[in-house]
Amino acid sequence: EIAVPIAEVLKQKGIRLLLGQSVTAFERTGDATQCILSTGERLSAEIVLVGVGVRPENQLAKSAGLAVGPRGGIVVNEHMQTSDPDIYAVGDAVQTIDFVTGEPAQVPLAGPANRQGRIAADHIFGRLSRYRGTQGTAIVRVFDVVAALTGASEKTLRRLHREYRKIYVHPTHHASYYPGAEKMTLKLLFDPGDGKILGAQAVGGTGVDKRIDVIAMAIQAGMTVHDLEEAELCYAPPFGSAKDAVNMAGFVAANLCRGDHPQTPPDECVPKTPAESFVVDVRTPKEFAAGHVPGAVNIPVDELRGRLAEVPSDRPILVYCQVGQRGYLATRILLQEGRQVKNISGGFTSFQMESTAQHLA
Amino acid sequence: EIAVPIAEVLKQKGIRLLLGQSVTAFERTGDATQCILSTGERLSAEIVLVGVGVRPENQLAKSAGLAVGPRGGIVVNEHMQTSDPDIYAVGDAVQTIDFVTGEPAQVPLAGPANRQGRIAADHIFGRLSRYRGTQGTAIVRVFDVVAALTGASEKTLRRLHREYRKIYVHPTHHASYYPGAEKMTLKLLFDPGDGKILGAQAVGGTGVDKRIDVIAMAIQAGMTVHDLEEAELCYAPPFGSAKDAVNMAGFVAANLCRGDHPQTPPDECVPKTPAESFVVDVRTPKEFAAGHVPGAVNIPVDELRGRLAEVPSDRPILVYCQVGQRGYLATRILLQEGRQVKNISGGFTSFQMESTAQHLA
Repeated sequence: EIAVPIAEVLKQKGIRLLLGQSVTAFERTGDATQCILSTGERLSAEIVLVGVGVRPENQLAKSAGLAVGPRGGIVVNEHMQTSDPDIYAVGDAVQTIDFVTGEPAQVPLAGPANRQGRIAADHIFGRLSRYRGTQGTAIVRVFDVVAALTGASEKTLRRLHREYRKIYVHPTHHASYYPGAEKMTLKLLFDPGDGKILGAQAVGGTGVDKRIDVIAMAIQAGMTVHDLEEAELCYAPPFGSAKDAVNMAGFVAANLCRGDHPQTPPDECVPKTPAESFVVDVRTPKEFAAGHVPGAVNIPVDELRGRLAEVPSDRPILVYCQVGQRGYLATRILLQEGRQVKNISGGFTSFQMESTAQHLA
Repeated sequence: EIAVPIAEVLKQKGIRLLLGQSVTAFERTGDATQCILSTGERLSAEIVLVGVGVRPENQLAKSAGLAVGPRGGIVVNEHMQTSDPDIYAVGDAVQTIDFVTGEPAQVPLAGPANRQGRIAADHIFGRLSRYRGTQGTAIVRVFDVVAALTGASEKTLRRLHREYRKIYVHPTHHASYYPGAEKMTLKLLFDPGDGKILGAQAVGGTGVDKRIDVIAMAIQAGMTVHDLEEAELCYAPPFGSAKDAVNMAGFVAANLCRGDHPQTPPDECVPKTPAESFVVDVRTPKEFAAGHVPGAVNIPVDELRGRLAEVPSDRPILVYCQVGQRGYLATRILLQEGRQVKNISGGFTSFQMESTAQHLA
């Protein structure tokens, strides 16, 4: 879902994005290169750029008898020593430890490579500097759209059977009343027990890098979603909000941990909302008319207390608004009426991103 | 010294900045207002904007018999209860605790005010939420120049007789080879013993807010300059560097803590370098010719090993370059030759900022 704005900007720029396909062969015909796709389609190109990830160049290490990991990374300890303690290795070719999960990791990034170099040099000269592991903080800009991440992804956490929860917020990068506010989507992954932050991903424009960097520090410090609530960040209208995007993510996640704000992630509502659930769209009729979750009933949040009779008591209730805040209020109102209710995290915005993601996949 | 770029941009924009003076009276004459300065000068104005700080409106609190602090702030505990536990107070009118120093603090900021409101509400409803104190993270933009800070200032640390060290770096906000890199100055205050970060200030353009926010999180987490060395932040050329400004500040400060890189802050070199010290400018002759520290001798860093005889062994040596890196290399070379040497932190750039600051003051 985080990749959706990237796919959309590519489309806007006239780029045809082929997903779920691969290039099976290249053929040279005259000046052009024919790319033969797995679907059988042939594309003619003047230049082909191939981006298929990286594999460690470990030939020298292997021939020296050094241990390499299952993905080919040269095995090193926290001092960057290989299996032969007189030989050090650093950079994209080594296998390190994932800072969040503690699992072996192979993450080709310039920042970690630089730090590893310093640590190896320290150790060679007798200092016990220690590499802490790689968080995988990374960023990419595609035209004007920026996507960034730090820490573990859902895919990693699922693979490790690590329990986690996720929330979405869609704040503006600075005070919304100040000209030029750009929207971003921030997704936070955390431990539902102690609230420890496991990872974050964001997509948008200006300010995405800042929020991921702030959360990267929080992960490095072993902080929780409760610490994000208390984060004291720069606020003046051109830079942020009194309640910054990071605080908002902290509030929403901490409210989930405390049980104040039960939430359902959008991928549990797309393509279908859970069976038996009664779905309430608490936005205005105008917003509802412009598009809504299939089967939803529209009861604007401001009318909800007076229209409780329309909300059944014998079924689970799902509520949502545009980004989550009115849905939160509706959730609180219905919880206090004893209903079994959850808010769709990130609201209709997240629902739409998830729908597009499933459509693309 | 951090205010110097602000003073300079005001001057560039044709604004006359009067320092060390105050307005003693206003007089109305026809449509204009006469501002009478402490120097006796009279200025005529159509509009006068008065910015003289804020004082708590504590009349209601006082008449209710609540305790107020020496600066008029309503005294509250960590749950935002006043001296009458049934009465809560939050926002600009309260006296809280300085997160870094633990001293009483009165900091009118929107972020803390918002958090205090949530904490008071929690406590009223039986939850033991606790306000951690105010770090004083703040930011201002003056035309295109941005200045921001978090944590304690030198002034505060000196007042409390708290031991600290300071370093300066002048990195670009993103990779210097990528178009549009803007320079910033980042000053870090830390405990020379354990390296704990006490405060930071930055001035520049784009990216100043991000670095102060990252360091604000580090302060909130009780992190040290060694943690800044290991920070794993977003890097792609439009956003940062493999060694980010924050990492650089960490490296320079940690090198000072470890004794690898003795440094002198620029305010110990302006207006005069310490008596008896021999000052070496390790930049190129061209840089030297364009301006240098009075009395400095020019020995470019690349020639230093071959010209050691020109550097006396019987006196303290001060070295500097443009921003600090070549000065660091020269410091290491001279240290290994047994010389008593320090690098001017932030180099000639910091020296010039400090000179201008003293000239303005």
